[in-house]
Amino acid sequence: MALWSGRFTENVSEFTQRFGASLPVDKALYAQDIAGSKAHARMLGARGVISPDDVDLIVSGLDRIQARIESGEFVFDINDEDIHMSVEKALIADIGEAGARLHTGRSRNDQVVTDTRLFAKTRCTDLMAANVALRQALVDAAKRHFDVILPGYTHMQHAQPVFLPHHLLAYAWMFARDFKRLAAARDAADVCPLGSAALAGTTYPLDRSMTASELGFGGITANSLDAVSDRDFLLDLSYAASVSCVHLSRLSEELVLWSTSEFGFITLSDAFSTGSSIMPQKKNPDFAELIRGKTGRVVGDLVALLVTLKSLPLAYNKDLQEDKEGMIDAARTLEDCYSCMTGMISTMTVNEDAMSTQVNKGYLAATDVADYLAKKGLPFRRAHEVVGHLVLLCDERSCDLEDLSLEDFKAESDLFEEDIIEALDARSIADARITEGGTGREAIRKQLVLVEDSLAADCSSL
Amino acid sequence: MALWSGRFTENVSEFTQRFGASLPVDKALYAQDIAGSKAHARMLGARGVISPDDVDLIVSGLDRIQARIESGEFVFDINDEDIHMSVEKALIADIGEAGARLHTGRSRNDQVVTDTRLFAKTRCTDLMAANVALRQALVDAAKRHFDVILPGYTHMQHAQPVFLPHHLLAYAWMFARDFKRLAAARDAADVCPLGSAALAGTTYPLDRSMTASELGFGGITANSLDAVSDRDFLLDLSYAASVSCVHLSRLSEELVLWSTSEFGFITLSDAFSTGSSIMPQKKNPDFAELIRGKTGRVVGDLVALLVTLKSLPLAYNKDLQEDKEGMIDAARTLEDCYSCMTGMISTMTVNEDAMSTQVNKGYLAATDVADYLAKKGLPFRRAHEVVGHLVLLCDERSCDLEDLSLEDFKAESDLFEEDIIEALDARSIADARITEGGTGREAIRKQLVLVEDSLAADCSSL
Amino acid sequence: MALWSGRFTENVSEFTQRFGASLPVDKALYAQDIAGSKAHARMLGARGVISPDDVDLIVSGLDRIQARIESGEFVFDINDEDIHMSVEKALIADIGEAGARLHTGRSRNDQVVTDTRLFAKTRCTDLMAANVALRQALVDAAKRHFDVILPGYTHMQHAQPVFLPHHLLAYAWMFARDFKRLAAARDAADVCPLGSAALAGTTYPLDRSMTASELGFGGITANSLDAVSDRDFLLDLSYAASVSCVHLSRLSEELVLWSTSEFGFITLSDAFSTGSSIMPQKKNPDFAELIRGKTGRVVGDLVALLVTLKSLPLAYNKDLQEDKEGMIDAARTLEDCYSCMTGMISTMTVNEDAMSTQVNKGYLAATDVADYLAKKGLPFRRAHEVVGHLVLLCDERSCDLEDLSLEDFKAESDLFEEDIIEALDARSIADARITEGGTGREAIRKQLVLVEDSLAADCSSL
Amino acid sequence: MALWSGRFTENVSEFTQRFGASLPVDKALYAQDIAGSKAHARMLGARGVISPDDVDLIVSGLDRIQARIESGEFVFDINDEDIHMSVEKALIADIGEAGARLHTGRSRNDQVVTDTRLFAKTRCTDLMAANVALRQALVDAAKRHFDVILPGYTHMQHAQPVFLPHHLLAYAWMFARDFKRLAAARDAADVCPLGSAALAGTTYPLDRSMTASELGFGGITANSLDAVSDRDFLLDLSYAASVSCVHLSRLSEELVLWSTSEFGFITLSDAFSTGSSIMPQKKNPDFAELIRGKTGRVVGDLVALLVTLKSLPLAYNKDLQEDKEGMIDAARTLEDCYSCMTGMISTMTVNEDAMSTQVNKGYLAATDVADYLAKKGLPFRRAHEVVGHLVLLCDERSCDLEDLSLEDFKAESDLFEEDIIEALDARSIADARITEGGTGREAIRKQLVLVEDSLAADCSSL
Repeated sequence: MALWSGRFTENVSEFTQRFGASLPVDKALYAQDIAGSKAHARMLGARGVISPDDVDLIVSGLDRIQARIESGEFVFDINDEDIHMSVEKALIADIGEAGARLHTGRSRNDQVVTDTRLFAKTRCTDLMAANVALRQALVDAAKRHFDVILPGYTHMQHAQPVFLPHHLLAYAWMFARDFKRLAAARDAADVCPLGSAALAGTTYPLDRSMTASELGFGGITANSLDAVSDRDFLLDLSYAASVSCVHLSRLSEELVLWSTSEFGFITLSDAFSTGSSIMPQKKNPDFAELIRGKTGRVVGDLVALLVTLKSLPLAYNKDLQEDKEGMIDAARTLEDCYSCMTGMISTMTVNEDAMSTQVNKGYLAATDVADYLAKKGLPFRRAHEVVGHLVLLCDERSCDLEDLSLEDFKAESDLFEEDIIEALDARSIADARITEGGTGREAIRKQLVLVEDSLAADCSSL
Repeated sequence: MALWSGRFTENVSEFTQRFGASLPVDKALYAQDIAGSKAHARMLGARGVISPDDVDLIVSGLDRIQARIESGEFVFDINDEDIHMSVEKALIADIGEAGARLHTGRSRNDQVVTDTRLFAKTRCTDLMAANVALRQALVDAAKRHFDVILPGYTHMQHAQPVFLPHHLLAYAWMFARDFKRLAAARDAADVCPLGSAALAGTTYPLDRSMTASELGFGGITANSLDAVSDRDFLLDLSYAASVSCVHLSRLSEELVLWSTSEFGFITLSDAFSTGSSIMPQKKNPDFAELIRGKTGRVVGDLVALLVTLKSLPLAYNKDLQEDKEGMIDAARTLEDCYSCMTGMISTMTVNEDAMSTQVNKGYLAATDVADYLAKKGLPFRRAHEVVGHLVLLCDERSCDLEDLSLEDFKAESDLFEEDIIEALDARSIADARITEGGTGREAIRKQLVLVEDSLAADCSSL
Repeated sequence: MALWSGRFTENVSEFTQRFGASLPVDKALYAQDIAGSKAHARMLGARGVISPDDVDLIVSGLDRIQARIESGEFVFDINDEDIHMSVEKALIADIGEAGARLHTGRSRNDQVVTDTRLFAKTRCTDLMAANVALRQALVDAAKRHFDVILPGYTHMQHAQPVFLPHHLLAYAWMFARDFKRLAAARDAADVCPLGSAALAGTTYPLDRSMTASELGFGGITANSLDAVSDRDFLLDLSYAASVSCVHLSRLSEELVLWSTSEFGFITLSDAFSTGSSIMPQKKNPDFAELIRGKTGRVVGDLVALLVTLKSLPLAYNKDLQEDKEGMIDAARTLEDCYSCMTGMISTMTVNEDAMSTQVNKGYLAATDVADYLAKKGLPFRRAHEVVGHLVLLCDERSCDLEDLSLEDFKAESDLFEEDIIEALDARSIADARITEGGTGREAIRKQLVLVEDSLAADCSSL
Repeated sequence: MALWSGRFTENVSEFTQRFGASLPVDKALYAQDIAGSKAHARMLGARGVISPDDVDLIVSGLDRIQARIESGEFVFDINDEDIHMSVEKALIADIGEAGARLHTGRSRNDQVVTDTRLFAKTRCTDLMAANVALRQALVDAAKRHFDVILPGYTHMQHAQPVFLPHHLLAYAWMFARDFKRLAAARDAADVCPLGSAALAGTTYPLDRSMTASELGFGGITANSLDAVSDRDFLLDLSYAASVSCVHLSRLSEELVLWSTSEFGFITLSDAFSTGSSIMPQKKNPDFAELIRGKTGRVVGDLVALLVTLKSLPLAYNKDLQEDKEGMIDAARTLEDCYSCMTGMISTMTVNEDAMSTQVNKGYLAATDVADYLAKKGLPFRRAHEVVGHLVLLCDERSCDLEDLSLEDFKAESDLFEEDIIEALDARSIADARITEGGTGREAIRKQLVLVEDSLAADCSSL
């Protein structure tokens, strides 16, 4: 045993076999690999490269392998290195020489990226469906709590009153944008590289469109060198997942905040809460925290792939073997987070009283008092100052604006009249914001139509 | 002076003023800020919120400010905190009370994101134009060197011969995908948030579509809470820039490699090379290295924004002030890198002899010898083994496959015949790859049509 | 004008000059560059490589250049590319041939990294000083509010009562660890690479230890190839800054939270708060938000450098020119954030009543009731269940544990006795935690000694 | 079934159980969890909190559980959520009420971080050992190829000749710095948080030093709030791994480059090379590529944790559950990469001829010719110009400097004399660099002593 092998607790060939193998990761793509091989075999048959009998043998052989994998009967061997060799070897063992003809006009380089694209497309569709379900849950909650009012915040300070549906729909729009990104990632994956062979194309008279079409691809790649080394579609998927996780982290942050004793705005259902091993009273918003925390790993998956791809020359390099694990993780994490958030939103209890108590704190009417003056002709910047004085007055008296008398108002500006009093009501203030996208319920009703239109359109593109 | 202030070499208010100010960064957005204010003023006038005279005063006042800024006459004061206050204060100083009416029905929260969206749109268009120029340079180079042959590589090992235009066009396709991402970022930016006010919309009868239309936006935002806190469009821009920089890093890596004494495939023009302060003989591919190195900062800009946005509750939080610097940096870096690469590609000398010398090394014909056998009926996996033996034979003799005799071939397989000898010619081998996307010149000609179609389509969308 | 130059709005040489120049960034290192050159000249003189007269001319010439730079009189010219050429050219212009002898036995490759190491060391020391100031502010605040009690949180839920000094000192420990990381970064920078020349060392009889010693370095680098390409010390600095920013983001998050209307635990001083352009009542914790937001850019700076360094072969590559900007940004950002946080902590008002009101909510005594039972022999897991029932009872009655009667307790377990009532007092509960590191004031007093010892030790290492 | 549950293919409680469980990840920490529990039990016994009999029952029960886990007999149940509950539940099932007393004066919050710290310490030590093995392999290779000369590169251009041991030792120094970072991460992990309980310490009279000592910790944490939420030691480990992977990526890049047909500097052993599924001639440096590619995932792991920790308020939050997977991955990846690189370096063949052929290309003597003139009194900047002219002359004649005649030299400068000819020999040039850290063999011999001293010191600290 060589000196340098002191570090190897396993022997060298075992070690390199394990270290170099992608099988533990890429066996998740078995269905895609088999579908790709069947399509390739049928096309080879159609072009006369292999015989109809060989095609039949190959296709039925692959079907048997798929059945064995799905029944758990198939034994994966790390020495086969990857899913492609695992399947091909099993095929040759089963049907003999016909199996050895399958790899004609194909290389693992175009095969692996075909499998990965098929897999990525499926995962995008899954994520788009889960995305739609979450948006639907937000819409449902928005309707259920349509008349609930709460403080709107900027800088986490009370700013102006808003209706809860407006707040919930803000997230529905974020996720609607994420749907677009997921769809773009799916489109990016939706071109078939089969026929690019190792790097330069092949001399066999392949019908690339036939294979692409049979596999459900929207088109074929245009340059073989690019085709075997392009992993942009995985970046697109990881990026879409990262942004959506950032959005989920924002919503989670609010759910955690709203579940505090201090806010008390919501109570998460027991199904989405947990206790403590030591503190008997605890009911923790664990799942919101966990979703928030998982943002890290998905952003990490994106960074990992960017780092791996940096500076790689053409065409295929083994570095690219590192492409799949992060994508699989990002997709699974996002799907789980979508589902969990859907469940939380759908089952949470909204404590209207706690919300409306807070609406009466923090001078939420201040902007509207300034606007009141501005509408009577005072330049807004001056009106802003007048209200600043009124707020200081309230501070001194430990009261809110609605506790001031008409005289108090008039002492600061002659423009105040009787109607200022009713102008201080939070619901009236919120409802007065009827410009498109505003929090007035009239505007929210219109917004709901837009949200539902976008949901319907996205559902139809699944 | 308080004990704790020991750390402040400047006094506290100077320090907080400087630390809190965004002016050094956002003054780059002066033109967008002024355009936004003019559109807002005209709309307020059209809706009767301010008088026509006020509109005229405001618009002409803003024009004067813009002229002063562009002539360098305008003095920015860090105490004004940001570009919005700088402009508004100057306006009030110039036209008085009318200026104080401008901020009616508007908040800095919707104002700043309107400016940022306008700026991002412009930068996306700039980048799309620079992207197109680079792709054109690649196409021109591909045509110029249409018949040049070089080794195609996988794992940096000689794999199969390819034509240089094929290699160059692989990058054209990467950048074509980047164009799509930049266009998506521009679309994401192309909705007008004005009218969202601080967070909840406004009670003024604004005509949001009028402002949006005057500013050239494609639509208006649908939810005011989302509108003032949405920075997805900046993520999209930073992401598009990151991916494109990764592509540039790959091309740069190859230019650096090809410029080595060992490869000697290209000579970069003197305009894009530099010398050494100590080694008189050096001619360094500095600019390719610099582009490759700048990938880091652009990926860093993307990560920075993702981290900043993580866990932010609704609606506007001051953290968002950190949104612009990274985007400005990413866009400027990418634009410079595109321009620099365009220049390098357009002026480099291709050393055809060095490339073709390497084509005759490394058994580039091996795959085709295997295919030769496979086409005569030997299963590909068996043919692969036969050629493996031939390669070993060459290794022993320190020669390449074309140096073997027909007898040598026949000794390994009876299927070899006279025509094997001509089958070993690199150009014939490359040209035989005529499937779509292959490296055969017939296929490359078709690929060029596709590339030019995509360029034309993208040019028309600028 | 060449077709490809369409993208260049400036001409090619202007563009490449600007794009390739590091001067706008590295002129910040002028003092280090001059100090390095003076030390190098003196050493060359000591070894007889240049004459004593030349040494005098060089040193006095460099002093004059430094004076001109610091008075603002020196005009930097982008055509000089970097600070090294700027200074050397000015020196030769001033003193002639002697200036041209300065670059003997030196290359820009070892010169630039010497400058960068000197600069990084200084910045580390600055940051360590600012770090110590912040920890001192936390210690002062801990002493000032020694007896203030507030809820301790896990999962943002009330968990157990803690004393405010305990909470504040938690952050002091985080920053104490950051001090160690900054010190490690300084140590990493503290070796002198001068004498490594371009990459291989030099044939001049340099006295490397003399230069290192004159510049205050702790040692010299051991391998010239490594020396000119090693940027680990910048990674270490960016990493230390990133972790400390993450800690600052955590503290900022709490300051923002505690400033909400709902918590109301603290009031930030006006010097560290700002208003709103539209909402007259707002007093926003802008600076805490800004610090939190700046975490992004510092983490981005770290990622940028990791990406840039990935896969670079030996020795110097131009990619390394990208090394300084991120470090400068990270150090300046962290220093500002430290200073700002120091000011905020030192000036904030603590609202004891708001804190103690919350202490009486959320069953903070529950763990201690369970411990009460466990100490009487009930296995803890069983005791946990008993208290769970008591909490449910309180929930039904909308009261807290201290509102229950002895009978209520006894109904759940016979082990409860009279003394359970006093066991429910929050301060007693907190004070009972006297194990090392616990929140009992007796333990906090000991902790304060440790904190101050660590502060004293760190101060002495500045 | 609720509408919103449409997305759940599993039922809600199964889903949340799986989503919330950390067991699949943290069962890797079973040995640490059991060791921690045994130490805790013994300490509780020593302090009289539980009886000696209980201690015996607990310790022997835990030993049995460990044996069952290690024999594969123990069945993990996802419903137990994490390793702590799995073990505790099994213990109670085995020994009854005594088992239920184990969790006295402890919480999962301090328990989990104790386990994690123990685990991290072990992994650091493993990595430090693998790091030392790699450095030893580099030293061995440096000695084996002590007299081999090759071109030194800057900007990937031939710069000056260097000896191969110098090049290899450059990496030994990088990894020596990484050892320090790993040791720092181990030190960071080496404090015991047990006794911090949920967040505030405990009322039990724990002997924290006893537990810490029994578990081999160097000290105890000083603040319970910090102790349960501090994950800095994991950041430190991920950071150390990231930097070391960047170093490995640099070495891998060179191995890939040196294995090309164009360079041909080394031949990797068959044990560390693989073939192609389609190209029979290929021998790919797969493992070097794979190591280079894995840099991405480790940097991704670091970013993930930084993102997760950003903005988390005190004390424990469920987000922290995401802390372990990335660290486990980073450590395993780095350990494998170290081992693989050790094997590659130890078994590669160095092709001295290919290296020395390249030494005679690219004017590697140019710097020394300039130094020759400088030593005769010509200012270096002038000498640099003279040699520039000689290089141009060679370019015209397609020769190298050593092919020029004395007359050619004299035509450019009178200072050239007979001895210039011998001054052009590459080995003499390299050997003349005898300053500390230079590439002269005399200097390398001294460097080797330093490297071996550092190795010996590091070995003794394992």
